[in-house]
Amino acid sequence: MNFDVPQIETVTVDDLEALGVGAAILGTGGGGHPRVGKLRLRTLFEDDQYPDAVEIVHPDDLPADATVTSVGGMGAPTIGVEKFPNGAEEVRSLDAIEAASGRTVDALVPGEIGGVNSLVPLCVSAMTGSPVVDADGMGRAFPELQMDTFFIYDHPVNYAAISDERGNVLTYEGVDSAVRLEEFARAGTVDMGGRAGYAFPLMDGSFVADNSIRETLSLARELGHEVLTAQRDDRNPIDVACRTVGGTRLFTGKVTDVLRRNEAGFATGELSLAALDGPATLTVEFQNEYLVARRGDGKVLATVPDLICIVDRDTGLPITTDALRYGQRVTVLGVPAPELIATEEALDVVGPSAFGYDLTYNPLVVESDSW
Amino acid sequence: MNFDVPQIETVTVDDLEALGVGAAILGTGGGGHPRVGKLRLRTLFEDDQYPDAVEIVHPDDLPADATVTSVGGMGAPTIGVEKFPNGAEEVRSLDAIEAASGRTVDALVPGEIGGVNSLVPLCVSAMTGSPVVDADGMGRAFPELQMDTFFIYDHPVNYAAISDERGNVLTYEGVDSAVRLEEFARAGTVDMGGRAGYAFPLMDGSFVADNSIRETLSLARELGHEVLTAQRDDRNPIDVACRTVGGTRLFTGKVTDVLRRNEAGFATGELSLAALDGPATLTVEFQNEYLVARRGDGKVLATVPDLICIVDRDTGLPITTDALRYGQRVTVLGVPAPELIATEEALDVVGPSAFGYDLTYNPLVVESDSW
Repeated sequence: MNFDVPQIETVTVDDLEALGVGAAILGTGGGGHPRVGKLRLRTLFEDDQYPDAVEIVHPDDLPADATVTSVGGMGAPTIGVEKFPNGAEEVRSLDAIEAASGRTVDALVPGEIGGVNSLVPLCVSAMTGSPVVDADGMGRAFPELQMDTFFIYDHPVNYAAISDERGNVLTYEGVDSAVRLEEFARAGTVDMGGRAGYAFPLMDGSFVADNSIRETLSLARELGHEVLTAQRDDRNPIDVACRTVGGTRLFTGKVTDVLRRNEAGFATGELSLAALDGPATLTVEFQNEYLVARRGDGKVLATVPDLICIVDRDTGLPITTDALRYGQRVTVLGVPAPELIATEEALDVVGPSAFGYDLTYNPLVVESDSW
Repeated sequence: MNFDVPQIETVTVDDLEALGVGAAILGTGGGGHPRVGKLRLRTLFEDDQYPDAVEIVHPDDLPADATVTSVGGMGAPTIGVEKFPNGAEEVRSLDAIEAASGRTVDALVPGEIGGVNSLVPLCVSAMTGSPVVDADGMGRAFPELQMDTFFIYDHPVNYAAISDERGNVLTYEGVDSAVRLEEFARAGTVDMGGRAGYAFPLMDGSFVADNSIRETLSLARELGHEVLTAQRDDRNPIDVACRTVGGTRLFTGKVTDVLRRNEAGFATGELSLAALDGPATLTVEFQNEYLVARRGDGKVLATVPDLICIVDRDTGLPITTDALRYGQRVTVLGVPAPELIATEEALDVVGPSAFGYDLTYNPLVVESDSW
């Protein structure tokens, strides 16, 4: 990515639609539907006791010694839509790690830009006044917490907390790895009914500036804005989406089958597509997010960590794994992974083998003249 | 119980054997073996940086506004013997609830007197200097945390924490019932490998004085002392045990069978006994602790919350469920439950139905002339 997009300085109610669409495309089928996040943020903006805008801080402008934490939702996205949050979950988690550590949080950073977790930090910002960093820990969405760049690049877990809508707060200290925190917090989230709000870890501004995917809030807003305005301006939404994120069309066709299993807390399955004008087929395997796109002749077109995004062929609007159904006309986009999630260190955690695939990661190459 | 026993004012290395034996008898087959607790406490007493004695405070002498918490081990007792604690688990949990609440703990109280959890608060006392209340929350051992008198008599959960030997600390706030805390903390304990040290809840001295089983450290020490010295003094150990705790012999025989299952984190099973001098038989069902003693003709001799204790027929030393084996000669003792765990409120939580039995609790009646 790292394309030139207008830099975001504040988020107001006018940005919500664009941010939601952009975040859902970057969510690669998972990451939680932004709808609940948009509703939460709209409610806060409309409430007189909260500000009308949220301040966004560029990673270069973050003081090196600022205390930054990530806040968001954890658990099954499908549950997140039904077991409605009351909006205080992440703030309570934030309070808990502040109390346990004796530190005060100065800024918030999204753990992932894909899906609802790009919007939750904005809600917490509206409630606490802390600005949100224009960056995130994944540049997309991934299903497990050790898969963010903060932990890939060895930030200690130090303090973490999760909370639910009933006011239960679980705080974690002294956990020696992100994988262990994932185990602890996943079990806690399941006990909370499958969805919780989190805050972790406590990082310095300089660490966040160096170890996050930068300007992704700006990118999400621009991507959503371009897709939403393309039709009105008589441009092709998929062309503008590819151009904005530096992606390419992998396949266009109709959904011929969707297999879904709920396994170990994940929405796992396989999507089958058939071309509209020929015998070609494509399967896309997913575990919350779309992981591998494989053509009928066996050729692998894209794998994690590259982004596989599925959008409506005509509108360019994103289609999450739970919304897939027979007969939809869709386009599958491939977007090269941001550099920080495609290094050797990162591939151990978010490459195909981390998801159980015996596949080598062949980085997707997109020619810029393909747009 | 509530028998006149010499009041304990301090615990030194000389009390360890007696306390361990008494606690294991009152553990009714479960509660965790006191061996690990005795080793921990002996090590502390022998270490120059810790005192040679632990101060015991009578519940009547506890200031009404003192802050008191319960500390101990949680999880499968069998794991507690193999996954050795490093001794800092409960202190770390204590630190975590102090940090989360902003309160300072003035005194400790055992959550249960049966088994290892009578000794763990003494270890924490040696390390922190806080005295231990001569009382506990069960008057015996029970397998789940909502089964102590503090929660039976409606103390809020407020703050709770568990920690393991690797330094992981999980803190719980805002949990609305002890049953929910049991779920959360049980899952956390399982994630920690099946054994953790806990601290919860934060109580006032007056609440502890009114809602605990009193003078049970004194009782445990006296019971152990009497059993250990009986043979030397040519007294019958079982007679002196019955007299000390107000109990009675239910059955004497040999072990003819032991069925054991590990179910949902509990050691569940059934013990069969045959009389040595006739056709009579007895079965004792257990779930960590001995729950129901039933004669071969179907007559129920005792059920929870009354204490069913199994001891060696000759020495009077306790036999825990995991130590049962074919051929042992044992005596089954019945001891009437302390009043606070036999009220209507308590029976909902610790009566036969709470363990899945379709049995009415018929309080065991012991004639004092039976000793």
